[in-house]
Amino acid sequence: MISKKYSKDRIRSRITDTKHDLQEIGEFGLIHRIRRGITSSDPALVQGIGDDVAVIEVGETATKALLVTTDILIEDIHFDLSWTDPSQLGRKALAVNLSDIASMGGIPKYFLISLGLPKNLSLSFISSFYRGLKKEAKRFRVELIGGDTSLSKKIVINICLLGEGEKKDLLFRRGARVGDDLFISGTPGDAALGLRILQKKGKIKGAEGLIKKHLSPCPRVELGQAIAKRHWATAMIDVSDGLLIDTSHLLQESGVGVRVWEDRIPLSRLYQKWIRFFSKDPFQLALSGGEDYELLFTAPPELRERISSLARSLRIPITRIGEILPIKEGLRIIKEDGKDYSPSRLGFEHFK
Amino acid sequence: MISKKYSKDRIRSRITDTKHDLQEIGEFGLIHRIRRGITSSDPALVQGIGDDVAVIEVGETATKALLVTTDILIEDIHFDLSWTDPSQLGRKALAVNLSDIASMGGIPKYFLISLGLPKNLSLSFISSFYRGLKKEAKRFRVELIGGDTSLSKKIVINICLLGEGEKKDLLFRRGARVGDDLFISGTPGDAALGLRILQKKGKIKGAEGLIKKHLSPCPRVELGQAIAKRHWATAMIDVSDGLLIDTSHLLQESGVGVRVWEDRIPLSRLYQKWIRFFSKDPFQLALSGGEDYELLFTAPPELRERISSLARSLRIPITRIGEILPIKEGLRIIKEDGKDYSPSRLGFEHFK
Repeated sequence: MISKKYSKDRIRSRITDTKHDLQEIGEFGLIHRIRRGITSSDPALVQGIGDDVAVIEVGETATKALLVTTDILIEDIHFDLSWTDPSQLGRKALAVNLSDIASMGGIPKYFLISLGLPKNLSLSFISSFYRGLKKEAKRFRVELIGGDTSLSKKIVINICLLGEGEKKDLLFRRGARVGDDLFISGTPGDAALGLRILQKKGKIKGAEGLIKKHLSPCPRVELGQAIAKRHWATAMIDVSDGLLIDTSHLLQESGVGVRVWEDRIPLSRLYQKWIRFFSKDPFQLALSGGEDYELLFTAPPELRERISSLARSLRIPITRIGEILPIKEGLRIIKEDGKDYSPSRLGFEHFK
Repeated sequence: MISKKYSKDRIRSRITDTKHDLQEIGEFGLIHRIRRGITSSDPALVQGIGDDVAVIEVGETATKALLVTTDILIEDIHFDLSWTDPSQLGRKALAVNLSDIASMGGIPKYFLISLGLPKNLSLSFISSFYRGLKKEAKRFRVELIGGDTSLSKKIVINICLLGEGEKKDLLFRRGARVGDDLFISGTPGDAALGLRILQKKGKIKGAEGLIKKHLSPCPRVELGQAIAKRHWATAMIDVSDGLLIDTSHLLQESGVGVRVWEDRIPLSRLYQKWIRFFSKDPFQLALSGGEDYELLFTAPPELRERISSLARSLRIPITRIGEILPIKEGLRIIKEDGKDYSPSRLGFEHFK
């Protein structure tokens, strides 16, 4: 009976699918297929699939929202044990989830962790991992409330993070309007370059700052909340897959296009020093490297001064890198010489 | 700097730990260590680490509670692709989480799914997996609201399920009192025997009922809610690791002991037919096999009649198998001949 059902499924999917495996459709193709069949009639569900964070109304007055996000890290895909310090791994596993809550301007609160661990993993590794995890949890005032553990050949870490926010304050990928400015916090590309250096040269002297950005990213929780509660931004997302690809997600959900001035992308001094050993194009990794965990947001031009002043008071660089255009313009990059192009490959995608 | 910190951690943990790897402490030893450092001062946190489900007060009047649980399934640990139908795998991934919410008497509502998938996995597998997942979701009226996807060598499935309940109705592992009866729903051991049959003989004729219990368990969501809202039970847990080991969890959290009459353990007709090919002791798998996803609960003796009548109306067998004793008695099994013993190995544990 079981085998028959499986065969029927296979036949049916052969008829409807001309593509055959994940590699052909990629991560975003997969997500598109998953979303396809899902429509919600639940009035409490403010945001379901389609953002990094799900948003559910709670409470009798429905002014508060519950935020939920999840991220999985897998050994040899997201991290390499040969250069991973377990304490930093613990911090990072939580940080990537905190960044999702930050991208909405939410307040992170509780998390659950599922761990797949090899039988012969040393207890010192586990102790150190939990020490890093708990340190990060304490720093951002979030609490470990549950989880699951299992045997696994490779280390698997899944965190599900819950947060809260005032419904009226929350920011989404949708909402950007034509004429808005596009801003990014921090200096994109550092983490991706840090990873390239680790892969090619190991932990070499002078590149520690870039390597740290990869191994131990700092989620912009405070900045996200500051932007959200002031009602300045029209849309926001965190940059995890890469500046261009996450910009394209924001454009897609907002139904707009964008012009990004390449020479306005803020590059750190260390990045500028090291990038020439890896690429002729100094902007390539900054545009498509991934794992920046910076915030990308749009806001009306009249708020430029106030956004600059917030950046100074929080001591976080915030740079205006583009302007929102009508949807037909798509995603356009303006090079230093004034020529513009539409990038063909935006950034990192699993399976492809 | 990074390597130094790691070394320091290693030295510190060498001083405090006489054990060296996961295998020595086992899954429950690991969980004990994780819990050790965690104390909560958050008044909204009704139940943190220590149960399968975390419970958080929500809303202005704090009568409602948010329930959160997570379970991870890993290829070659929890399932074997050679006999796994992807649609059943999708159902089961959700079912094991539904069972946790059922064990509190909660109402499951929303879930997030993280998937680690091999690059060359066929789209027909994925379509079938999602078809099973969505079917189970529809049946139990829960909604997929988010998730994450990643490349992985082995398939990894992590679900985080959210539910809700009236705080006054929820049941926990703690709460059993001396003199209470111990009840179990369904017929334990079927799923474990089904797995043994698959492993030794494959999908053979005549054993489909047992195999189905392993591949496609049915979470007792309706029963859990019925027991909880009537305020009959004093403590409840779902049987996932095995009847004895989950009984021991209930005893530990309640601070009591128990006497279980072996010959009262309800064995299905199919189980009785097939168990003799696998074990001389017909009760061994029923006591320690795991993956039953039945409910185990305690209730005062004066409710026996009413519990029987509920079982009849829901058409779910509920059997009285033991009585709660003072803690000093521990976990005692009474054999058919009246002799009793304390089992040394209770059931399945990861890493050991």
